[in-house]
Amino acid sequence: MLVVAALGGNALLRRGSPMTAAAQRANVREAATALAGIVRAGHRLIVTHGNGPQIGLLALQQDRTATGGVYPLDVLGAETEGMIGYLIEQELENALGHSVPVATLLTQVEVDPDDPAFTRPKKFIGPLYGEDEARALGAALGWSIAQDGDHWRRVVASPEPKRIPDIGVLRILVERGVVVICTGGGGIPVAERPDGALQGVEAVIDKDRASALLAAELGADALLLLTDVDAVYRDWGGPDEAPIRRMAPEEAVTLDLPDGSMGPKAEAACRFTLAGGRIAAIGALADAPTILRGEAGTMISQDPA
Amino acid sequence: MLVVAALGGNALLRRGSPMTAAAQRANVREAATALAGIVRAGHRLIVTHGNGPQIGLLALQQDRTATGGVYPLDVLGAETEGMIGYLIEQELENALGHSVPVATLLTQVEVDPDDPAFTRPKKFIGPLYGEDEARALGAALGWSIAQDGDHWRRVVASPEPKRIPDIGVLRILVERGVVVICTGGGGIPVAERPDGALQGVEAVIDKDRASALLAAELGADALLLLTDVDAVYRDWGGPDEAPIRRMAPEEAVTLDLPDGSMGPKAEAACRFTLAGGRIAAIGALADAPTILRGEAGTMISQDPA
Repeated sequence: MLVVAALGGNALLRRGSPMTAAAQRANVREAATALAGIVRAGHRLIVTHGNGPQIGLLALQQDRTATGGVYPLDVLGAETEGMIGYLIEQELENALGHSVPVATLLTQVEVDPDDPAFTRPKKFIGPLYGEDEARALGAALGWSIAQDGDHWRRVVASPEPKRIPDIGVLRILVERGVVVICTGGGGIPVAERPDGALQGVEAVIDKDRASALLAAELGADALLLLTDVDAVYRDWGGPDEAPIRRMAPEEAVTLDLPDGSMGPKAEAACRFTLAGGRIAAIGALADAPTILRGEAGTMISQDPA
Repeated sequence: MLVVAALGGNALLRRGSPMTAAAQRANVREAATALAGIVRAGHRLIVTHGNGPQIGLLALQQDRTATGGVYPLDVLGAETEGMIGYLIEQELENALGHSVPVATLLTQVEVDPDDPAFTRPKKFIGPLYGEDEARALGAALGWSIAQDGDHWRRVVASPEPKRIPDIGVLRILVERGVVVICTGGGGIPVAERPDGALQGVEAVIDKDRASALLAAELGADALLLLTDVDAVYRDWGGPDEAPIRRMAPEEAVTLDLPDGSMGPKAEAACRFTLAGGRIAAIGALADAPTILRGEAGTMISQDPA
């Protein structure tokens, strides 16, 4: 099978843990062990990843020093594709004993410059703050801020991914058996100018949506949306809380799932399934090989069980 | 012909100009016009680039805020491959009217962990300072510093590039007609551990040396080392100053060229020529297509003119 595995930002950096290079590398190493299991089971693999905590940190370091000016989010997104892509590539190569080629491709993803998301920023990036600190930073640095669970964070525009210009290059690598890391952070957001050229835009694309588009365009068999929670739950935190093992996309859209975590994952899984994808599943990163065998996580499928 | 074009940091960011994203993009756009000329002349193209100013700036922003800790130079190098690679890719795609696929591949480059360069830091990175400011920063942040022309800068270890693990992936892309941007900043420096795994090291590899290795390994026909000076000069700044149009590698090694600028370029050109490369040339970025026709720059060749 051709498998697209999307790693959540929370799978790479534990909630509330320090954003040091060492902490990220340790988490990436665990992720690489799980991903190597997919390759060892004989599947072809594409890896995508989030960048919410990392891009927010880069923006913050710049805002606080402004040495060389503040770079726009497309440029910072490209930096995170380099940084996170490198960590995943190196750890995955080491986990596979350098027996399979692994490559990281920078990936632009095209959005509509008139996407309504540009006027309604909703995507969380960067560190968690208390409300007062978030309000002070927002006022000082011109950020939009919003509540994320018990904390507050910066929010930015998250337009719909429409097209992956490098899809042809990705197909070449997949055909030749290369494990590819791409579309990091949902891809570097770009939009077409009136003259037909592409240029960066100030946004962060949702990486689950971008991964669903990528998986559909590549004709992948499976899309795995991997996070730090082992399944989608019915009545999460309530008296009837229970993991869902399998559901139809029609059922998934009726669940009331939280924005910014399970909601976008369930939506992306549905999109891939409705676009003809065979297997879409959500679950814990460490369970990736087991999820693919249908023995863990939540599978979203049009076929009855 | 298969052409490897190495863009100097100074070709992307003018000496002393502000390190803003806008300034870099404007310079990259000019570079892209020259590079597009090589592709339009019917050649296959690989682009490499320096990262000295940019990696120094990233390190500095971190040192001054230490939000999330200070990342090592391999991780920062990966960030610059993302940032600079994206700018070059987008501008080159636009310059070519999206008629030729262009892809950016993250590139690790292996060095010897016992390279003597680790004990003798010599590679300039980051902004230019006056002597007093450089000494103060060096003391505060644990940097090594050294004089660079009229200014002072941070210096880091610059070990010899030995091997490009992704060379097989690069060959696939070149064979399929993809213009590839790779080995940015001399590549992400990695070394083998006793257990055979690769890990990052605290260094910045010279991008001209890494480009010469890349060109030789790919069997390229030409290596162009592009900078902001139009040729190698005899008696630079002296009474007999004159551009050199053509020289044998044996002559190049006898010239007294400045460390950190023309010296490494002439050395890299000699290495490629002595490894069997047909054309090695040094010149101005804007002249790239003309240099390739032998009508500008300095050509280093074993053949008599």
